[in-house]
Amino acid sequence: MFSVTVREHMMVAHSFQGEVFGPAQRLHGATFLVDATFRRGKLGADNIVVDIAKAGQELAAVVAELNLRNLDEVLPGVNTTTEFLARHIADRLAERARSGDLGAGGRELAGITVTLHESHVAWASYERTL
Amino acid sequence: MFSVTVREHMMVAHSFQGEVFGPAQRLHGATFLVDATFRRGKLGADNIVVDIAKAGQELAAVVAELNLRNLDEVLPGVNTTTEFLARHIADRLAERARSGDLGAGGRELAGITVTLHESHVAWASYERTL
Amino acid sequence: MFSVTVREHMMVAHSFQGEVFGPAQRLHGATFLVDATFRRGKLGADNIVVDIAKAGQELAAVVAELNLRNLDEVLPGVNTTTEFLARHIADRLAERARSGDLGAGGRELAGITVTLHESHVAWASYERTL
Amino acid sequence: MFSVTVREHMMVAHSFQGEVFGPAQRLHGATFLVDATFRRGKLGADNIVVDIAKAGQELAAVVAELNLRNLDEVLPGVNTTTEFLARHIADRLAERARSGDLGAGGRELAGITVTLHESHVAWASYERTL
Amino acid sequence: MFSVTVREHMMVAHSFQGEVFGPAQRLHGATFLVDATFRRGKLGADNIVVDIAKAGQELAAVVAELNLRNLDEVLPGVNTTTEFLARHIADRLAERARSGDLGAGGRELAGITVTLHESHVAWASYERTL
Amino acid sequence: MFSVTVREHMMVAHSFQGEVFGPAQRLHGATFLVDATFRRGKLGADNIVVDIAKAGQELAAVVAELNLRNLDEVLPGVNTTTEFLARHIADRLAERARSGDLGAGGRELAGITVTLHESHVAWASYERTL
Repeated sequence: MFSVTVREHMMVAHSFQGEVFGPAQRLHGATFLVDATFRRGKLGADNIVVDIAKAGQELAAVVAELNLRNLDEVLPGVNTTTEFLARHIADRLAERARSGDLGAGGRELAGITVTLHESHVAWASYERTL
Repeated sequence: MFSVTVREHMMVAHSFQGEVFGPAQRLHGATFLVDATFRRGKLGADNIVVDIAKAGQELAAVVAELNLRNLDEVLPGVNTTTEFLARHIADRLAERARSGDLGAGGRELAGITVTLHESHVAWASYERTL
Repeated sequence: MFSVTVREHMMVAHSFQGEVFGPAQRLHGATFLVDATFRRGKLGADNIVVDIAKAGQELAAVVAELNLRNLDEVLPGVNTTTEFLARHIADRLAERARSGDLGAGGRELAGITVTLHESHVAWASYERTL
Repeated sequence: MFSVTVREHMMVAHSFQGEVFGPAQRLHGATFLVDATFRRGKLGADNIVVDIAKAGQELAAVVAELNLRNLDEVLPGVNTTTEFLARHIADRLAERARSGDLGAGGRELAGITVTLHESHVAWASYERTL
Repeated sequence: MFSVTVREHMMVAHSFQGEVFGPAQRLHGATFLVDATFRRGKLGADNIVVDIAKAGQELAAVVAELNLRNLDEVLPGVNTTTEFLARHIADRLAERARSGDLGAGGRELAGITVTLHESHVAWASYERTL
Repeated sequence: MFSVTVREHMMVAHSFQGEVFGPAQRLHGATFLVDATFRRGKLGADNIVVDIAKAGQELAAVVAELNLRNLDEVLPGVNTTTEFLARHIADRLAERARSGDLGAGGRELAGITVTLHESHVAWASYERTL
């Protein structure tokens, strides 16, 4: 199995609902490093998993929908945990892969994993098939 | 599949038995960065894999049993290799997850992976189901 | 010249006033890795610059005043840029060093530098004497 | 499942054939951080996956065949993408594991993964069984 | 003293002239992480050292002149060592700061430092006043 | 001012004397990442600060004197703090630079800085002139 990963980042505000979140129920924020991994069983004709320039552009486009915003307004009523955001971004990338935005290679992908680092000591991932 | 990872570290002394270890048969030491990954198929009601505060506390508690010690005394007669320590910590976290120390989410975990970085150029992991 | 550095982090929301900030005028957030460096010309009797446990505690205490908050409320009317926050934290640490909170070594410090990483591709520092 | 990873690096020149590569069709270069992961279901008698000293030597030997070279000459007519190089190195390590160069533990390996970081924002992996 | 740093990267081919370079006399390549640090004694009205968006754009523009190229052709007859490239980029940024491309804050800068990381185990810097 | 930095690491055991060290008075250990920075006002004929291959070899030789040892035996009666070790290594490198082991460039150095990272959240430096 091959994979290619590209990294972006976003800086967002949000708050959480639920006692489990303790002081993080207050409005606060985070820089998320966003790593998107594209998996594929075989390489294409050019010896690539997917056009890495397109992969970077699509990830940047998905991240731009959230970047420099208050997620309590962008996704109201949702606990935008790191786990949730990893799935949200993975699912958006999956749509784009299926619709051809990642080029021909994107339609051959076996899966996508998105990892969000919320600090140097905590991160979360969501892994899905395509 | 979702996962959440938290990082701790510990600073220990130890020595190894066996020619394969060469000069590492001498008493020496290591800083281990300890990454504990908790995997779960679905998110809980709060959109989390597990209470990350509890996850961090439990990892800190497990690491504290080893931190700032000579492992030749803590675990006598054992080659406390990076691989061994990764399993040791993963198994201790698994016990705590099953006993409810990680909260309700901890009982829903599919697996745990522990990665120990012994330097910027070498690390080891142990991955297990729950 | 000797120095010792300890790292903490904080997750905050804030917004900026001024056209120069572009889309960052919106409420957003950041994880700041906070590195506090304590400089001293000579080592003390214990071969240390400063008690690193105390240094870590004091940095944690200063960071805790800002962590998991909306800085627009904590420091109203201020552009809490990365540069500004680096000075803010350095000045708070300097007060604590002078008042003896860092132990005897803290009174012998030549200077303090605070570096805040706002992402993997941008950071800011403030360096001062004591 | 256990794993052990060692890191090397190499500095190479190359160019790509195909419009998908855009300006990377020009002769350029890269520093690749090369992480080789050796997986094994059970630990051996010494509590190790594989002799890490041997693992490091074998990885260094494989990387040395490419390091400080123009890959357009070493592997003519091939698009030496990050993905391709990950497989190339993994396959060379697999040969060495099977031939006993990694010691007895090397013959017990379940698989090898090689990850090549081409920058702080892009990397690729190839994972195979043994 | 305040400073702000932004990071870019470039992927180049080059070769060196001189026995001191050993096998690096061959055509090879490197990914350089390029960190540009802008220093200033006081903050401006907006609490910033320099417009970080402009700083990033100017650094990107300077790096783009070298990125994905063979430096033996871009700068013929020059040993484009990491040290040399750090100065080259710092000097180009200094020109742009003086000419106003970094905005008003750019004219108030005390100095610029450029650090180029050629791998995870080697880097070089050039520090200059303005 | 130019500088070049090379990184090594060492894995040592040691204990500290003095109440200030708390539980670190027990025998424990550390992996130290060792960064040696060589500073020089002007570049030599080859556009280098110092022969980086020689710099790496000399640093490796100095580190090898301490690596995989119990520092309580190597340097008895000394608190081998991170700060102390940074100076120890810097002074050894300075001797080697003056004696010509770093080549002609080594005699032109303005200074040396050694930084030891004891974990991902703590490090210490010693900076000296030559």
